Formats: sequence, C-alpha cells, structure tokens
Amino acid sequence: MKWISYRVNGQETYGVYMEEEKVIWNVPALEESVSGKRTLPNTLVEGIASGEEFTQQVKQWLKAAGEKETKATAISAEEVEWLAPIPRPLKNIMCIGKNYRDHAIEMGGVESIPTDLMVFTKAPTSVIASNEPIPAHAHLTETLDYEGELGVIIGKKGKDIPREEALDYIFGYTIINDVTARDIQKRHKQFFLGKSLDGTCPMGPWIVSKDEVQDPHRLNIETKVNGEVRQQSNTEYLIFPIDEIISTLSEGMTLEPGDIIATGTPAGVGQGMNPPNFLKSEDTIEINIEQIGTLSNKVQ
Amino acid sequence: MKWISYRVNGQETYGVYMEEEKVIWNVPALEESVSGKRTLPNTLVEGIASGEEFTQQVKQWLKAAGEKETKATAISAEEVEWLAPIPRPLKNIMCIGKNYRDHAIEMGGVESIPTDLMVFTKAPTSVIASNEPIPAHAHLTETLDYEGELGVIIGKKGKDIPREEALDYIFGYTIINDVTARDIQKRHKQFFLGKSLDGTCPMGPWIVSKDEVQDPHRLNIETKVNGEVRQQSNTEYLIFPIDEIISTLSEGMTLEPGDIIATGTPAGVGQGMNPPNFLKSEDTIEINIEQIGTLSNKVQ
Repeated sequence: MKWISYRVNGQETYGVYMEEEKVIWNVPALEESVSGKRTLPNTLVEGIASGEEFTQQVKQWLKAAGEKETKATAISAEEVEWLAPIPRPLKNIMCIGKNYRDHAIEMGGVESIPTDLMVFTKAPTSVIASNEPIPAHAHLTETLDYEGELGVIIGKKGKDIPREEALDYIFGYTIINDVTARDIQKRHKQFFLGKSLDGTCPMGPWIVSKDEVQDPHRLNIETKVNGEVRQQSNTEYLIFPIDEIISTLSEGMTLEPGDIIATGTPAGVGQGMNPPNFLKSEDTIEINIEQIGTLSNKVQ
Repeated sequence: MKWISYRVNGQETYGVYMEEEKVIWNVPALEESVSGKRTLPNTLVEGIASGEEFTQQVKQWLKAAGEKETKATAISAEEVEWLAPIPRPLKNIMCIGKNYRDHAIEMGGVESIPTDLMVFTKAPTSVIASNEPIPAHAHLTETLDYEGELGVIIGKKGKDIPREEALDYIFGYTIINDVTARDIQKRHKQFFLGKSLDGTCPMGPWIVSKDEVQDPHRLNIETKVNGEVRQQSNTEYLIFPIDEIISTLSEGMTLEPGDIIATGTPAGVGQGMNPPNFLKSEDTIEINIEQIGTLSNKVQ
C-alpha cells in the first residue's frame, strides 16, 4: 500500500493511493463507510502510532469496500493538495552521514569513510511534499546541494533492538532529498544548521508498506537534475545496512512509531563534481527508488 | 512566574508554582474558576504556542483569584508528580556546543574555540524532570558526563529574526543538564547519538517567565557533583550570546513556540578534569542558575 497525507477543504487527512486508478481512499472515511464507526486518529503519523494492527485493519477495510463495489470514499488524486506523508514529524529526522563508500570518498577521500555510524538531524520544519518548491535561500547560501536517500519509517516503539529483529520495527519506506547548504554545513561544524533550512527535506510522495518491498538492501536509487543522471547506486552498497542502523540508533535511545531515518546518499552530489555544481533556481531534482517511486522538486 | 508541568491522577497538566507557599495553581482550573470557561489547551507547550497573550492572561487570572481570596485551584506542590516543564518537546532540543571559552579550551585547546555557532540536537525522548533518576547506561558507556546549561524557551514563531529583536522571541528560561556519553559522542563524530540516550536531558524544575530575569547575560551558573563545585561561571562569558544564538538559528529556519535551546556549558565538566572524572551510580548533580533555581538529579 502507498500511504499518503493530503489536504482537502483546508483539513489535513490521510489515505491509501491507488496508483493505477489514480484515486485515493480516505482512510478515516473508509473506516466509517465499512464499519459505521470512526475510531482512527486524524493523522497518518498517529495512525502508525496506534499499533501494528493499523496496516492490517486498513487492508481489510479496503477489501470490504471493494467487495461492496462502492467507491464512495475514493476521490481523484488530482482533487487534493498532496502533503509529505508525515508533514510534521514528532521529532527531528535522523540522518546517516557518509553511508555509501563512494560518497564518503567524494566528500573527503578514503580517510572519510566512517568506521561508526554518523548521525545528525534535520528540523521537522524542513519537511515539504513532492512537487512543493524548495526555497533557494539565496541570501544565505550559494552551495545548495541535493542528496537522494532511502527513508525508513519506524512502526513500533523499541530500545536496544537486536539487529536480527530490527526490520520488524519498520512501518514502511519513502524517499528523502536531504537538501544541504554546504557552506553552512561546513561553517558550523556540526551538520544541523546546514541541513535544517525551511523546505530542505522533501519527502514522499508516499510511504510504501514494508511488506511490498522485497528486500530494502537491493533497491536501485537514482537522482536526476534537470533530467541528467547524477546519482546512480543501489542500497546494497550501504556501509551500515538498515538493520544495523536501527539497532545502533536504539542503543539506549527509544525509537518511536513515526520516527524517520534517512539512510544516507550515494556518490554524485553537486559538491563531489569537478568543478562542484550546486543547485540553481528552476533546477528540478527527481529521485527514483525502485519499488518505491519518484520524489520530484523544483528549486524556487 | 514559575511555569511547571506535572501529573496528577495519571493526567498531565500544568500550572504556576508559588515557591514561598509551596503551592501550585493549576492553570486550566484557574481559568475555569475565574472565567467560568475552559478555553486553554491541555499542555504547557500548547499554552505557550497559543499566543503572546497567554502569560498576561494567566497573570490576570492569578490576580483575580487572589482578590477573591479563594485557593480552590491551588494544591500542595508535594501532592503531584513533577514533570519537566516541557515533558515532550515538539522537536529535538537545540544545543550550542563549546559556547564558553574556557570549556572549549578544556575540550580541545585554543584551536577548539569556535568562530561560528556549533549546533547539535538531543532527542525529545531524552527529557526527564528534576529529581528524576538519570539512567547510568552502564552497558553502553563508561564516560557519562554532566553539562550545566541555561535553557531558553522560544515564545513565538519567527524566521530571519534580527539580533536586536531576538530577545522578544523568548518565553522564558530554564535549566538543562546536557548529559553526554563522551565515548559515544567521540566514536560517532556528529554529537547526536552521544547526547540522546534516554534520560540524559534533565530539564527544569520550571520555566521562569522572561520578565522575571533582569538580564539573561548576567546570571551566575554553578554545577555541583555530590556537593563539590565543578562548574562555576556566568552567562556573561557566553561566546555567542542569546540574541545572537536566536538570530543565527532562525536564518532560513523557522523557530516555533516551545522550541528549546541549551546555550552551552562552562568549564569544569568531568572530561576536562585531570584525570577525567565521569559520573558514577548514585552521584547527584545539582545545577544552580541565579534567578532561576536548581535542577537536581541522581544517577541511577
């Protein structure tokens, strides 16, 4: 299933997107039409937090609605304003730095390949949807850069999670563009400021349920700028794979449903080109990840 | 006013603490008893976010309640479970690294004195109240360290805030112990992981309204471990003062009501001693800041 958040009549809500039919089943309305009740929370992140039965429950309602052959709650995907799947995360997005060998090398040579997980965060205020413009922040930076990344959404609470159980804690996958102001990132040493400008965390267009991704460590990932391929890799090249990331993050720190992890970017960022080639106004960045979809944003 | 959050009958609520009388005026109940209505939100952070009139409004109700000579809504401070003033921040706590010259030197010599603001974050899950135990995390770290800091709570939304207006964006001040696992901090390069273990952000015991702090840049700050003075400084020695911190943070990044900033720690942390002297089970850390109060926590 493809989980989305969107706005309709000024109200944030969420649903399941049917890509072939290009329709959205509004999940709270679906519950009401099938069960006659309304028990679900108002946002997708609260739905994820409501428990592991959430996905199964919605699946059953979708099936029941299909059997009744009623499309009462399905609306055209074009009629709504799409939001990031989690428009307002409940904490900062956790990002893994230099997690592809070739990217670590392009950023600082072989000595820059990490031996331990490097984790920084992006402010929740940086999140925007697919197709929403990325502010250029031209008065603050001349070196805005893209970073295409696989995003992991945590589905249940856990601490000190053993590596062999780590994938059970995932709700689903998304795409994240970890847009970075390289000059600010460098000037302030710790990465937070250079990674947290408003609108520098495009995310989406949806979250794909984990059961629809066969192996998260065998996904092609590709970033294009104005149609030109800049990053092309596969998640099999992650230095720290997803199970290890989750296990290490959870050492002494409780992970919670709705937590978002950006797993790192492969080689090919603007900073790594010779000469460096940063984002300009009107540039369009498209990030495609196999089995997930395409995240597309234009710089304002 | 001293703003606190607390739990009573299993429910989180908030109030104003009267230190002399050792009583708490529950703010939502106060509103109801004075105005007959209940319009306020359920948590202090939502109250702060409700607008700049929040503080003035509560002040008027307190005055009205005093004139009526009714203490109907005032309860003994000992009858409730005290929480951190913002028990669950809406995003990570933003922390300034190496913001006192002598601390920067003890951590890495003069070349470690920053020329630009260094900002990292702590996870919201790390927050605990004054008098709540700090987990030792003995299976993960042997180098748990204290950092006494002045905490700033943002009161209104702003972006690209000019330095001369920055102090207007403050709701109040608190005390933060930026407890740090030095080995984890060092191992993972970026500071997030070593700063975010559960229970490593003691905060409180309250937020003091900004109008009761004459000059936030002239406050003595002192940290004791088991009664022995370890840190003793004054906020006048901040390399980047509070107005500059707020202004720089807000460059391109929207600050929001309820945002929490830890302004940095002076010299005297365990790591800086010769030989280094880290926290052990049963150690009590007390951080006192002039005009604010004392934050006290014991290591489990």
